[in-house]
Amino acid sequence: IGSNSVETDSQTEWTDVQKKIIPWKNTTPSLDLEMVFQDRAAKLGKSNSRLIVVASLIDKPTNLGGLCRTSEIFGASALVVGGLHYLQDKQFQHLSVSAEQWLPLVEVNGNIQKKTEGYTIIGVEQTAKSFDLTEYCFPEKSLLLLGNEHEGIPANLIHHLDVCVEIPQQGIIRSLNVHVSGALLIWEYTRQQVIKQKQQK
Amino acid sequence: IGSNSVETDSQTEWTDVQKKIIPWKNTTPSLDLEMVFQDRAAKLGKSNSRLIVVASLIDKPTNLGGLCRTSEIFGASALVVGGLHYLQDKQFQHLSVSAEQWLPLVEVNGNIQKKTEGYTIIGVEQTAKSFDLTEYCFPEKSLLLLGNEHEGIPANLIHHLDVCVEIPQQGIIRSLNVHVSGALLIWEYTRQQVIKQKQQK
Repeated sequence: IGSNSVETDSQTEWTDVQKKIIPWKNTTPSLDLEMVFQDRAAKLGKSNSRLIVVASLIDKPTNLGGLCRTSEIFGASALVVGGLHYLQDKQFQHLSVSAEQWLPLVEVNGNIQKKTEGYTIIGVEQTAKSFDLTEYCFPEKSLLLLGNEHEGIPANLIHHLDVCVEIPQQGIIRSLNVHVSGALLIWEYTRQQVIKQKQQK
Repeated sequence: IGSNSVETDSQTEWTDVQKKIIPWKNTTPSLDLEMVFQDRAAKLGKSNSRLIVVASLIDKPTNLGGLCRTSEIFGASALVVGGLHYLQDKQFQHLSVSAEQWLPLVEVNGNIQKKTEGYTIIGVEQTAKSFDLTEYCFPEKSLLLLGNEHEGIPANLIHHLDVCVEIPQQGIIRSLNVHVSGALLIWEYTRQQVIKQKQQK
């Protein structure tokens, strides 16, 4: 009975978290990402960023927490995660510094592609056809898919992507930490958007 | 006596580490950074990078370990740290993924400025006179000074810098993690160098 009551408490917390983070989750059957983005843009006082960071392949709470902080700071529209249980993880919370209160976190729910029409799906991965990050021009509507810490992006997902982008590396050891890889692409997207906006003025 | 013998062991390890990482430490009285850089460039098969990352104000072993990994991957010349004891720290080792075997780690030793003539000393800090990272053009010989996790760069050090650069932030929460801030400036330096090299060809 004791164990059962703990579970009930835990479920109550869960529902609260979901209501807080994804207010439409219990009211509409499908994800309405555009509504989330508009709400986020209104809070930030701008409407130009259309960047979705998909971190659902990532396992480590530290990497997810760090990405949550970095994505929020650069005004990303949303962070897609494998499960909202990460929000309860102390390592996640330590690294996110409460960014999850401001950045919409979306639990991956079926095929994200169908729900993000108009977005270019960009895998952060080294492949034979990858663009070099110094040469890639990000579309305004960009969805970044980050790989798993060990496996990267599984081969069966690669052909669902519109494009792959890789970060040129010059050292002796290989592969950046996934939070850092994500941060560099988020920065590069942001930098290009800032420059475009200045040119339009 | 027991405690003493532990200290002796620890000192032996220290000397070994210093010999491994800084082979000239016991042979010449002063830092010969240029020799370190040439050795590093030779190992990487290139001689163009002249980037020094100074992390001596940083406290957390996790941030230092992460910066060690990221700096190595982007071919930085050296990482300057507050003390080589961080190399023994398990959190450092976990995050650095052995990058310290390839990247020269230099223990800060008196006034780094005198030993790095010709380098532009760039503080990563928000000040009234900071350049925006989207507008700053890195000199070939760049020394990045990263701030402390809590205090940033102390006010009494700011006037020793040649320039400050800040990362434009758009979110609601403030201030990136120092490893991420460092990674973005290391990337931006690298990106500009890559583009310059392509233009020269």
